[in-house]
Amino acid sequence: MGKYAFGVDVGGTTVKMGLFVTTGNVLEKWEIPTRKENKGVYILEDVARSIHAKMNERGLGEGDVAGIGVGVPGPMDETGTLLGGAVNIGWGTFNIPDALGAYIKVPVKATNDANAAAFGEMWQGGGKGCSSMVAVTLGTGVGGGIVVNGKVLTGAAGAGGEIGHIHLVDDETESCNCGNKGCLEQYASATGIARLARKYLAEHDEPTVLREGNVSAKTVFDAVKEKDAAAIAIAAQFGDYLGKGLALVASVVDPEVFVIGGGVSKAGEVLLPFVERPFRKYAFKGCRGTKFALAQLGNDAGIYGAAALILV
Amino acid sequence: MGKYAFGVDVGGTTVKMGLFVTTGNVLEKWEIPTRKENKGVYILEDVARSIHAKMNERGLGEGDVAGIGVGVPGPMDETGTLLGGAVNIGWGTFNIPDALGAYIKVPVKATNDANAAAFGEMWQGGGKGCSSMVAVTLGTGVGGGIVVNGKVLTGAAGAGGEIGHIHLVDDETESCNCGNKGCLEQYASATGIARLARKYLAEHDEPTVLREGNVSAKTVFDAVKEKDAAAIAIAAQFGDYLGKGLALVASVVDPEVFVIGGGVSKAGEVLLPFVERPFRKYAFKGCRGTKFALAQLGNDAGIYGAAALILV
Repeated sequence: MGKYAFGVDVGGTTVKMGLFVTTGNVLEKWEIPTRKENKGVYILEDVARSIHAKMNERGLGEGDVAGIGVGVPGPMDETGTLLGGAVNIGWGTFNIPDALGAYIKVPVKATNDANAAAFGEMWQGGGKGCSSMVAVTLGTGVGGGIVVNGKVLTGAAGAGGEIGHIHLVDDETESCNCGNKGCLEQYASATGIARLARKYLAEHDEPTVLREGNVSAKTVFDAVKEKDAAAIAIAAQFGDYLGKGLALVASVVDPEVFVIGGGVSKAGEVLLPFVERPFRKYAFKGCRGTKFALAQLGNDAGIYGAAALILV
Repeated sequence: MGKYAFGVDVGGTTVKMGLFVTTGNVLEKWEIPTRKENKGVYILEDVARSIHAKMNERGLGEGDVAGIGVGVPGPMDETGTLLGGAVNIGWGTFNIPDALGAYIKVPVKATNDANAAAFGEMWQGGGKGCSSMVAVTLGTGVGGGIVVNGKVLTGAAGAGGEIGHIHLVDDETESCNCGNKGCLEQYASATGIARLARKYLAEHDEPTVLREGNVSAKTVFDAVKEKDAAAIAIAAQFGDYLGKGLALVASVVDPEVFVIGGGVSKAGEVLLPFVERPFRKYAFKGCRGTKFALAQLGNDAGIYGAAALILV
């Protein structure tokens, strides 16, 4: 088996790529634009060309490369066939390993990008050394990636780990992006935290720095660090929703660790107690000891996880 | 590899045993008493003696037997070591394959009994032909067994599939057996359904056959079959809780099928629409199509699943 592997993370704007060695270290990272014209038909050809160029540059033959792992923004089955396409980049339903394999003669494996990020964090990030984890991505939405028995749990319909759409609140009046009402994502995403904050500020009149300028997840956690009472109350609301949601997840998959990533997690260690305290209140006693950690690989988690498909 | 396997299901009163052939058919089933004295120290010796006797009776040598699978009522790790013991039968923490292997020289594998039942239903019961499932056992409590990627999801602390302890209701005043308040088990177990019924009957004065004698999950579903309006309302409450709970589970593991078993499931097909309708309301759209089926193996699921540890 070759000593090298490529990790490829196909995004809506750029394709991130990394050259890895079998120890898990990345030798080099780069990116190319994602050409979305003509339903994204050039994307995999561009990826293959970029990999060939890198191989030539480093004098690597196909026998030196153990394979290419690819993360794609769409639901996918175990064989790497897109289920219903990847709408952000124009792709329909096809098999990624077959399609990329037509341009380059090395083994190819593919998975969903959120799952790839989860796998990356488990391999070399916040979940390193663990054998099961749930990666929780707190960004515009709430995403999840579940790794059990060393494999990413994709689900029968590609909806494994869609923890942002756990139903939490019966009397919610606003709709989630998914069409349902009361999803975890409506309270624990960056957008959700800003919404909780606006609501809190409208209902309370205590002085707080949050009344200056636009309120966002970032301004809330910045104010928490300054011990602003309103910000702490808002963070506690967010933490109660997320802690409750993750307690449900723990009763189902009982992971060794929850790895919290995404834009909101840039708040750092200050975030964790807000989530852990309600988690331990709502969780089944058998899994109340689940660990919490921050994600460590940031935007590189996807290329790590894609490479891990080949190297682990 | 031998053509035969034994499936063993260790329970609090009896040990159920079955002799299987590699096609998945059971040739013979029998049971022996569970000797719980002296912290259950004789149980595995009794199992080995019974298996040896059956092998002699049928003229089978150790080379004919592919292995013995064992289901045990306690949380267990991947290697078959009990985590914290099996309190119902007096066992502490030890490795089942090593312990049984001391008496009989064939490969031994072990798992939790609820997980074994799930695996059995997937192999030869309600989940046959599926590659992932969640077995939901509605008995005195609510149990769950999750099979993904062909493996039972045991969890880092042995609490995988503890779906009865999903937190559903914030303002519940009564405690669940686990110590928390508002667990799914408090509304969807046989006990929970009886409780919902008693509450409903106290709050409503419509005529119903349920006012005659003791109310139970069985009398509720018997009355549903007679189109009793109160029973239908109670079943709808039960179904709303369970459908909501399983929608949460689907957002996490996205199984191909939910297989509903346990005493409550003896109500039969009439049960399923009560659960499926709210499930499809609360579920994330990506997994709204999950199938529902009734369990088929009853009390034999455990021996099937234990044998499947060896034969699948």
